[in-house]
Amino acid sequence: MSRKIRMGMVGGGVGAFIGGVHRIAANLDGQIDLVCGAFSSSPEKSKESGKLLFLPEDRVYGNFEEMILREKELPEGDRMDFVSIVTPNHVHFPPAKMALENGFHVMCDKPVTFSLEEAQELAKVVEKTGLIFGLSHNYTGYPMVKQARQMIKEGKIGKVRKVVVEYPQGWLSERIEESGQKQAGWRTDPSKSGKAGSMGDIGTHAENLMEYMTGIQITELCADLTIFVDGRALDDDGNVLLKLENDAKGVLYASQISVGDENNLRIRIYGEKGGLEWYQPEPNTLLVKWPDRPIEIYRAGQPYIGDKGQAHSRLPAGHPEGFLEAFANLYRNFSMAVRARIENTDYDAETYDFPGIHDGIRGMQFIDAVVESSASSQKWTKFN
Amino acid sequence: MSRKIRMGMVGGGVGAFIGGVHRIAANLDGQIDLVCGAFSSSPEKSKESGKLLFLPEDRVYGNFEEMILREKELPEGDRMDFVSIVTPNHVHFPPAKMALENGFHVMCDKPVTFSLEEAQELAKVVEKTGLIFGLSHNYTGYPMVKQARQMIKEGKIGKVRKVVVEYPQGWLSERIEESGQKQAGWRTDPSKSGKAGSMGDIGTHAENLMEYMTGIQITELCADLTIFVDGRALDDDGNVLLKLENDAKGVLYASQISVGDENNLRIRIYGEKGGLEWYQPEPNTLLVKWPDRPIEIYRAGQPYIGDKGQAHSRLPAGHPEGFLEAFANLYRNFSMAVRARIENTDYDAETYDFPGIHDGIRGMQFIDAVVESSASSQKWTKFN
Amino acid sequence: MSRKIRMGMVGGGVGAFIGGVHRIAANLDGQIDLVCGAFSSSPEKSKESGKLLFLPEDRVYGNFEEMILREKELPEGDRMDFVSIVTPNHVHFPPAKMALENGFHVMCDKPVTFSLEEAQELAKVVEKTGLIFGLSHNYTGYPMVKQARQMIKEGKIGKVRKVVVEYPQGWLSERIEESGQKQAGWRTDPSKSGKAGSMGDIGTHAENLMEYMTGIQITELCADLTIFVDGRALDDDGNVLLKLENDAKGVLYASQISVGDENNLRIRIYGEKGGLEWYQPEPNTLLVKWPDRPIEIYRAGQPYIGDKGQAHSRLPAGHPEGFLEAFANLYRNFSMAVRARIENTDYDAETYDFPGIHDGIRGMQFIDAVVESSASSQKWTKFN
Amino acid sequence: MSRKIRMGMVGGGVGAFIGGVHRIAANLDGQIDLVCGAFSSSPEKSKESGKLLFLPEDRVYGNFEEMILREKELPEGDRMDFVSIVTPNHVHFPPAKMALENGFHVMCDKPVTFSLEEAQELAKVVEKTGLIFGLSHNYTGYPMVKQARQMIKEGKIGKVRKVVVEYPQGWLSERIEESGQKQAGWRTDPSKSGKAGSMGDIGTHAENLMEYMTGIQITELCADLTIFVDGRALDDDGNVLLKLENDAKGVLYASQISVGDENNLRIRIYGEKGGLEWYQPEPNTLLVKWPDRPIEIYRAGQPYIGDKGQAHSRLPAGHPEGFLEAFANLYRNFSMAVRARIENTDYDAETYDFPGIHDGIRGMQFIDAVVESSASSQKWTKFN
Repeated sequence: MSRKIRMGMVGGGVGAFIGGVHRIAANLDGQIDLVCGAFSSSPEKSKESGKLLFLPEDRVYGNFEEMILREKELPEGDRMDFVSIVTPNHVHFPPAKMALENGFHVMCDKPVTFSLEEAQELAKVVEKTGLIFGLSHNYTGYPMVKQARQMIKEGKIGKVRKVVVEYPQGWLSERIEESGQKQAGWRTDPSKSGKAGSMGDIGTHAENLMEYMTGIQITELCADLTIFVDGRALDDDGNVLLKLENDAKGVLYASQISVGDENNLRIRIYGEKGGLEWYQPEPNTLLVKWPDRPIEIYRAGQPYIGDKGQAHSRLPAGHPEGFLEAFANLYRNFSMAVRARIENTDYDAETYDFPGIHDGIRGMQFIDAVVESSASSQKWTKFN
Repeated sequence: MSRKIRMGMVGGGVGAFIGGVHRIAANLDGQIDLVCGAFSSSPEKSKESGKLLFLPEDRVYGNFEEMILREKELPEGDRMDFVSIVTPNHVHFPPAKMALENGFHVMCDKPVTFSLEEAQELAKVVEKTGLIFGLSHNYTGYPMVKQARQMIKEGKIGKVRKVVVEYPQGWLSERIEESGQKQAGWRTDPSKSGKAGSMGDIGTHAENLMEYMTGIQITELCADLTIFVDGRALDDDGNVLLKLENDAKGVLYASQISVGDENNLRIRIYGEKGGLEWYQPEPNTLLVKWPDRPIEIYRAGQPYIGDKGQAHSRLPAGHPEGFLEAFANLYRNFSMAVRARIENTDYDAETYDFPGIHDGIRGMQFIDAVVESSASSQKWTKFN
Repeated sequence: MSRKIRMGMVGGGVGAFIGGVHRIAANLDGQIDLVCGAFSSSPEKSKESGKLLFLPEDRVYGNFEEMILREKELPEGDRMDFVSIVTPNHVHFPPAKMALENGFHVMCDKPVTFSLEEAQELAKVVEKTGLIFGLSHNYTGYPMVKQARQMIKEGKIGKVRKVVVEYPQGWLSERIEESGQKQAGWRTDPSKSGKAGSMGDIGTHAENLMEYMTGIQITELCADLTIFVDGRALDDDGNVLLKLENDAKGVLYASQISVGDENNLRIRIYGEKGGLEWYQPEPNTLLVKWPDRPIEIYRAGQPYIGDKGQAHSRLPAGHPEGFLEAFANLYRNFSMAVRARIENTDYDAETYDFPGIHDGIRGMQFIDAVVESSASSQKWTKFN
Repeated sequence: MSRKIRMGMVGGGVGAFIGGVHRIAANLDGQIDLVCGAFSSSPEKSKESGKLLFLPEDRVYGNFEEMILREKELPEGDRMDFVSIVTPNHVHFPPAKMALENGFHVMCDKPVTFSLEEAQELAKVVEKTGLIFGLSHNYTGYPMVKQARQMIKEGKIGKVRKVVVEYPQGWLSERIEESGQKQAGWRTDPSKSGKAGSMGDIGTHAENLMEYMTGIQITELCADLTIFVDGRALDDDGNVLLKLENDAKGVLYASQISVGDENNLRIRIYGEKGGLEWYQPEPNTLLVKWPDRPIEIYRAGQPYIGDKGQAHSRLPAGHPEGFLEAFANLYRNFSMAVRARIENTDYDAETYDFPGIHDGIRGMQFIDAVVESSASSQKWTKFN
């Protein structure tokens, strides 16, 4: 008989932002049970978190190594099926590698690792173990992103000519990391975040979203990264010109000093026959533009939405779904892959897709390329 | 030790719309476990639904009577804590009454009952048993609705003068109930829906939202209900003039023949010193209007949002939350009340409020009043 | 040889609001010359205004009687062709009547007169003289209003079922007429404004716009007018339920105490097959709604706009036109009618239409009906 | 005694787009009279245009040389005061130079000349003659652009860090110049348009707007221009990274292949303390962003708008003004400068400013710089 998929979590102690998001996303569709966790590098904090999550004490571990080894020894009917990794960037690789090598599937927060080298090594582990690896490039989980991707794939807007993707935020316009803001702390610390700041944290989302929606990849780029806030070690803003496959061009920018902006991720795609525009703060709307007739307002959940978009809406139009639902779509789809593996069944992997190790590597390559380009006096830097 | 609150469900078999919503809402925050259900009047469908929800067979019942009686006999550590009722309107009263009388708390879909008489009788049962009763007037769960209510309570916009609340939908602009659309079927059938159509289904939401946000009540109304689609027995559109407490005035309308509109619930409140505007399709925004300075765009999750709004956001600004999160706020708050009862503790019931039997009675009175008024040649009909 | 049409103005001395609007509207398309005026009841102010408008001293008059009589004696090649009347409501009728009776066409600010009786008498003068009479219900001059009217006429949205038209303003939410604000002064004074306040000033615009766009008329109404600001003698807010021809229903409201709102005139029209929505603050957009496909954003100046809308745009899409251009459309069309009369030619009067005495009478009837209805305990008051 | 300022026009024969715009702009405020013109290189077309504009035959000339020489000989009380030049780019310099050298002020369409060399020579003529030279960078005429400039000047948003300015259009996404579209024809022809296409036509507007609003200048840029439509000789799209004074950074792009976009000029400016956002299709709104309080919606014509913005609104808030009014602001201000010269009076030249020869030279330098940069493999090209 079918059962819920069992999740263990690394990181995400009470008070952490992204850990809570992952838990809600996993809960939402009733397909996944949180059964254990190593929620903090402090065993006490881990215990406390476990209690608040109603976990039995013996399934709350002091660190991820302990969790992986002890869970492995549990009977098949009890032990976790996969590990969800929600730690800062520099603590993605070790638990991911260890989990995979001990037979557990992995869902990992993005960017996939601290460095490109780690990502490449992890890719080998994924390949070798044949296990399922998911990555939380959550913006690709929105129904209207699915719809846009499908429309482009089906040629609705013709060959893509130009893409403009931007991700302005304002929350780091002052040096809040100095006043103990935890999220800001590790993100602006190169020893935890990696070699890029804004570009790693949100530039990679923009890059991933663009390649996912258009189906074409960046081939060369020209970046100008800036540190606006004195005393900071990593870029808090970056502007990038893009060359893409099929002679398309683009602009990408990410910023954390755009005062007053929230997560204003916006993408505009122009093809030979039409255009598309999507804006994350109003995610249930997709503008569809034509050369000779009115702009159309596509809305999530409407009957005219294609099967890919429909498969990622839970509700009919008019009931706005948001960030958590999109995030939950990743977990739902990931759980379908895990379930298919467990139950040895098949499922529609193309419709119920989710980002994986390949997206992770693209992201790390993107970080490397923009950092290299920004330091260069040459206009174009290869990216592949 | 603390544990999850245990929910049993009446109705909501697979494929039903609102049942799925209630389940997601209950799941979302990890506070509630679905432990049993009587999901359909067909025992087979109920079984099938239970399987898909990963319930053990012996906790899936053929009808609500069986569920209530059998659960009551289970040990305290196993049996459900409350019943969630998600059946059509005419099947709210019987399970609600029986559940209460057998010691179970109740969360009920709205409108609370089929008729005002039932609602009044149910209120007596609630009072007598002293159990907790929640009602899914879900729009009051949005963080910006909480923020608006708090601002009005604190006098930010002064004495309320005028309210305009509207709920236009377009989905019933053709007679789709004839083609087997299940949602349309029972909603347009007076034997299941009650004496009003659009006014019962969505007019009551508008009424409830307005009274909740403003803190003042309708005292008289003048209604004009219409059946636009031939062959229909209940209103599919209604316009209402309002008198409210403190000499305020208002307009309320609900419509199911407003072609192309989704759930375009909008409320505008004007006071002596300022105004507020909220629009459900973009629920994370609250416009705040002043006589002598720029309109302000309040956004959910921003640090300047008051404690009531903050308590109902899970994420910082820029991560849009939607319908399900608002719905989940009701379940979360309801679960806090249940937990406090179980654990014999206290909690902040004002902040973590949820609609209850009083809201249900107001809704039924509203239905009675608009139907009476619409048939009358007198301008004003009392409402209280 | 063709020449510009010559305009004389009554009222609109420097500093007056609506006089300046009429002058710009008349100037804009280069079809009309201001040649004379009686700009103020104070001859000195009139002179001063004439100087600032670069008029020769002998064409600036001390009062309208003088202007009409003296202009009449000028040679045909010099004298004005028409009079533009931009005084407060109680000074519309006398100059309009006198101008017509002396052979001058008239363009008059709305509402057409102080009372329905005056309007009816004026209609007789218009009919008797056969001269051209224009009325500044300026909102009908917008290109997207023309487009909407044409679409409805052509049956694009089917039989109209429901109309919601609203005109909320906030500028009179405090008693600014007490502090010498001139515009507020006469509008809140029954001896100058007439028997209605908000309903006369802006309610009539809403009524006119609705009947113009839909092509159907109000047959009965139920009004609730309110004076919110203490000490005021006329309504500053009013809500109205409507019955219209062909069994359509509607809601109309106008308000001057809707704090923070500007001229937020909005109309939504729902037919059996589609819906339309237009909002004055963004006048170049018309939303077109369908039951089964995406909402379309029609934009002024786009090639797909019909001939009626095209005839009232001066610029291609993307160059926003506004209030003054819509107002100028009335003057342009009025000047075409005058020119055709002068040059004894023909022109496309259906395309280049403008409001006239009939609209004026409807407006005065509307004022009478809402005032009567508001005082009545009966629900419905006839309107025709 | 004061009189209207007299304008002669070069180009702008009936059917031309921008000529009509200039005429309406000149008419709108009643300060300027069109008294003569050389409307076309075809004398017959010029005559025909003159007739439709109600000009006497002897003030309609066959070419600009004739106009300038003949007007010069007219008595001072009759002859034109200034020349408005509305021809394609390659015919700006000759009439501008000749007009100035014959004592006439000049208002010229942008870009100022065909080449930077011409612009520099023209600047010398302007300086030598001391006459007034205006340039139609019309977007700077919008009231909310004035407001933004004033707020930045007064330090409201602190030191500017980042600017994003974009001007996407879609009208050239197909090769419509081949089918006789006149506007497309000369704009895509290097012998008439100059060395840039999209960058000359609209990129210069973006550059001008940015420098005007922020008060800081571009110092280096990195451009990537593209010809997307086969067979075209000039860029129809271009993306540019910017370095600005005071270590600010920026992104500028202009596009004519952004299918479905109209004139979607948008600028976002982020400073250390706040941000501003303005969008031309909704020009009466300025978003003002803060790090710690709600975004404010500034609206043209509201009492809280500063004196610079107020001076460029004709109407109170709620009466949308648009493209023509902004354009008319340039003519109104230009006419004030001419009038002050004629009447030997003073006026507030800072408030009533308008673009001039300096803006023209910046524009031509910008064109040169982006074309040079686009061809270069070096990242940064100096601009000054």
